[in-house]
Amino acid sequence: MAKASDSKGKTLAAAARLFRQQGYHGTALHDILAAGGSPRGSLYFHFPGGKEEIGETALTLAGEAVRQAIAHAAETSESAEMFVTRIARGMASDLEKSDFREGCPIATTALETSAQSDGLGAATRGAFEKWENEIRRGLERFGMTSDRADLTATLVLSQLEGALLLARTYRSLAPMQRAEQALKLLVTPANLV
Amino acid sequence: MAKASDSKGKTLAAAARLFRQQGYHGTALHDILAAGGSPRGSLYFHFPGGKEEIGETALTLAGEAVRQAIAHAAETSESAEMFVTRIARGMASDLEKSDFREGCPIATTALETSAQSDGLGAATRGAFEKWENEIRRGLERFGMTSDRADLTATLVLSQLEGALLLARTYRSLAPMQRAEQALKLLVTPANLV
Repeated sequence: MAKASDSKGKTLAAAARLFRQQGYHGTALHDILAAGGSPRGSLYFHFPGGKEEIGETALTLAGEAVRQAIAHAAETSESAEMFVTRIARGMASDLEKSDFREGCPIATTALETSAQSDGLGAATRGAFEKWENEIRRGLERFGMTSDRADLTATLVLSQLEGALLLARTYRSLAPMQRAEQALKLLVTPANLV
Repeated sequence: MAKASDSKGKTLAAAARLFRQQGYHGTALHDILAAGGSPRGSLYFHFPGGKEEIGETALTLAGEAVRQAIAHAAETSESAEMFVTRIARGMASDLEKSDFREGCPIATTALETSAQSDGLGAATRGAFEKWENEIRRGLERFGMTSDRADLTATLVLSQLEGALLLARTYRSLAPMQRAEQALKLLVTPANLV
């Protein structure tokens, strides 16, 4: 039982990494099997819905990991500015450590499949919504009103996602470093009131 | 000759639309042929490099069309705020008219292929760089200093790209409408100096 669940976890981790690096359509089932080291039989046992079910589950897990990282950034920060800067630096660090292969774990599949698959659309939408909510909660923790935190969370996430896309495409951290200045403006108390 | 070039143009337009809607890997050569109405022979005649060459050319053309739209927005605006708002509304309008199928024409392929293909990487990077330069030029037109316009252009493009990603995933224009408030902050003279 422990072994089966280990094989399931390895498959999901491999799938999440491949979807992050090269997208959903660019990743074949046999790539996931090879990277996860699982036999084909176990894959269909754990995921009778095949690639789409693996995608939904892997993206939901990847989304939850980012949500936890955002919550952790809020808990260990002393100001809204420090909080959003930490999120940005965490993303920039993942990108740099992976030689610009690992940006947002959700964005590529979201763009590829939003118009094609209800299940994957729901999984990617659910991940972004969770992140927005967690950013909103973090901002409220630092005294931002609920309405303003709700607006600011959308803008912070947009800024980060766009900067991550440019940084990955340019193979340069400059857009992420620049983004910190926009994030600072967005959380400045006098703005967006 | 006119006919041949017409067939080439139709192939490129079909490819650009498909890459925009479903990404590079999710689009097969036969999808491009079917959508463009061209025979397979003409495709290899015009694009001996196959799908990758079609991708590079189609993305470069799509990028140039957006650059021209940005330049036009600058020429027909009376302030930096009007300029960046027009860019945002043009993108939101494309997204809405396509029933949330057509967001950024470059982002999906950029994320899928940045680590895989030098040619496609150069085409997507080139498109984003052109847009950043055109936004910078537009901002300078409204009196922004060159250094500040350079920084602001990156932040405006990041904000727009991220909002477009969220809007497409949520199938809602709300993130694009919210983004206008961030854009306004970014181009306010007292900020980012």
